[in-house]
Amino acid sequence: MPTHSSVYAVSGASVSSRAERSPGRPATEHDAPGAHSPFSLAIHGGAGALSPSRLNGQLEAAYRAGLAAALTAGYRLLVAGGSAVDAVTQAVVVLEDNPLFNAGRGAVFTSAGEVQLDAAVMNGLDRCAGAVAAVVGPRNPVLAARAVLELSDAVLLVGEGALSFCRAHGIALEDPRYFYTEQRWEALQRELHRRRHGGRDDRDDADRHGTVGAVARDVRGNLAAATSTGGITAKAPGRVGDTPVFGAGTWAENGTCAVSATGTGEVFIRLGAAHEIAARMRIGGQPLAQAAADVVAELQVAGGDGGLIAVDAAGAVVMPFNCQGMYRGQIGADGVPRAAIYREQLTVVNGA
Amino acid sequence: MPTHSSVYAVSGASVSSRAERSPGRPATEHDAPGAHSPFSLAIHGGAGALSPSRLNGQLEAAYRAGLAAALTAGYRLLVAGGSAVDAVTQAVVVLEDNPLFNAGRGAVFTSAGEVQLDAAVMNGLDRCAGAVAAVVGPRNPVLAARAVLELSDAVLLVGEGALSFCRAHGIALEDPRYFYTEQRWEALQRELHRRRHGGRDDRDDADRHGTVGAVARDVRGNLAAATSTGGITAKAPGRVGDTPVFGAGTWAENGTCAVSATGTGEVFIRLGAAHEIAARMRIGGQPLAQAAADVVAELQVAGGDGGLIAVDAAGAVVMPFNCQGMYRGQIGADGVPRAAIYREQLTVVNGA
Repeated sequence: MPTHSSVYAVSGASVSSRAERSPGRPATEHDAPGAHSPFSLAIHGGAGALSPSRLNGQLEAAYRAGLAAALTAGYRLLVAGGSAVDAVTQAVVVLEDNPLFNAGRGAVFTSAGEVQLDAAVMNGLDRCAGAVAAVVGPRNPVLAARAVLELSDAVLLVGEGALSFCRAHGIALEDPRYFYTEQRWEALQRELHRRRHGGRDDRDDADRHGTVGAVARDVRGNLAAATSTGGITAKAPGRVGDTPVFGAGTWAENGTCAVSATGTGEVFIRLGAAHEIAARMRIGGQPLAQAAADVVAELQVAGGDGGLIAVDAAGAVVMPFNCQGMYRGQIGADGVPRAAIYREQLTVVNGA
Repeated sequence: MPTHSSVYAVSGASVSSRAERSPGRPATEHDAPGAHSPFSLAIHGGAGALSPSRLNGQLEAAYRAGLAAALTAGYRLLVAGGSAVDAVTQAVVVLEDNPLFNAGRGAVFTSAGEVQLDAAVMNGLDRCAGAVAAVVGPRNPVLAARAVLELSDAVLLVGEGALSFCRAHGIALEDPRYFYTEQRWEALQRELHRRRHGGRDDRDDADRHGTVGAVARDVRGNLAAATSTGGITAKAPGRVGDTPVFGAGTWAENGTCAVSATGTGEVFIRLGAAHEIAARMRIGGQPLAQAAADVVAELQVAGGDGGLIAVDAAGAVVMPFNCQGMYRGQIGADGVPRAAIYREQLTVVNGA
């Protein structure tokens, strides 16, 4: 695979100082544990955080433990010299397997009561990419996306064709019962009832959307991103959001950044959010923190709520969001998983 | 719909002089008739041009007449004060209806012998966008994409869900016989035979890919882009290329440019080609001709052959490509359709 020098040109900016926060700008956490680490992994469990009133202590602990488990799974690969693309894939697998998050098991239902999944993986080293969209059945859609990256001439496979690809390549499939969770089914029923009866849309973020994702820098300086989602509760069948639209919800280019987004996918697509951040760094020389915070603020102006995680070439991580909360976590060379849900700083996950 | 000032910031660069051509740089035509016109429309019929040995005079005249018909259809709207998004939609409809081009009627077949279509429309005014992918049945996929833009909360609908949307919104559907053309069916049989017998891939561009697209600037200065394709002969079912991936094969943002691409879609996705051009103009202050030519050259380095058409805020058009030919044409306020296929300059279409 040839390299693309002018596309890969690096801005030279490294992010090592805390971002200034101007009023009204989305909160940004970055660089705490991983900035000068030989490797760095950040994850999100979606900008679809429950409202604080619905999140009791036990549930909060479960979310934090779920984030820690995903961070630790990716860490084990990175500390052993594994690749960024393997680490993000594995972290997302763990999040997909956890029914608390809207991806894989625990995904939301379409208006037809089905689970249609989207996932994407991109390797910043060579910009190879793979994605599946609107696919019904794979236990771990991110592994289907990874298989597309590794084994297919295609970058994006959708629907029945994606499922055929999964079958041909031994991707584990599950029947609909595996994907059933009571909370997601009830969220669908509430939304369908609201649509029939014309009530106000008072769904909180957790009912509207949610996604999982990971970004990493490995010891060789390679970047990668992975994202996986069930989409929006009661979405139209066949609706595909920003997750598998490379440049919108998922992006990775060595020397600049890797990005995984979560939120109102349509607005992220219309603004080319993830690629826009990379372009502002590479072309405009902006540090990651500024580019990411600005884009997340612009998403909000355009009607998009949500957030993203991103890592730059030096391993510094940012996690801006413009809504109430975003499940998120980070791990660096110290191997200590840190997580947060609302506006608080990341804190060590107890018992991890 | 709120405006997004920082996203919409204009580089201020206007393209009015002929691009310098450095050795090895893809040929670029631009600004001939439309640069200082109150409106401008450019179209492509795909970088899948027949090799010159297969293109006799009669067939060449048919391609040029097909391009002229599409240009004239868009022109009629623009000269009457119509919008760029209407003009690109209408121009693409005419190309989809023409069996010579790989979109709508005349689309190539998947490896399963089916016609699965992708199309996208984006309005630079508000960045509203709509696309369908891997959909079987709509006579004019670009009208399905336009309906998604106008009527759906979604930006991208795929497969069966996209077809349901078409049915619900009265989009004209056709049965498989409508999409059958002897040339495409024979191209599929040749490729399937080659795969079974392990022959060398000697397909020329016309058998490998092809797409149609349009970009326009209207009298109010609004930009728009539309793209439609059958994809690649013998593509895997469910394979989606760059056409409906906004930022890759289709993009429009007022103040910068509108882009419609054609070629090896996977590479266009991996480089975020269309959005990359806009970013280099908006952030880097490059003129369209330079940004577009550089990106097309980088696509080639990355293994992507093809080209694109683009129009900037002043109405100047560029049409770079890195392969043998690209069916293309342009029309401005003089109402005279001009077209070209290989490296020659655009010339007036006789009898148009």
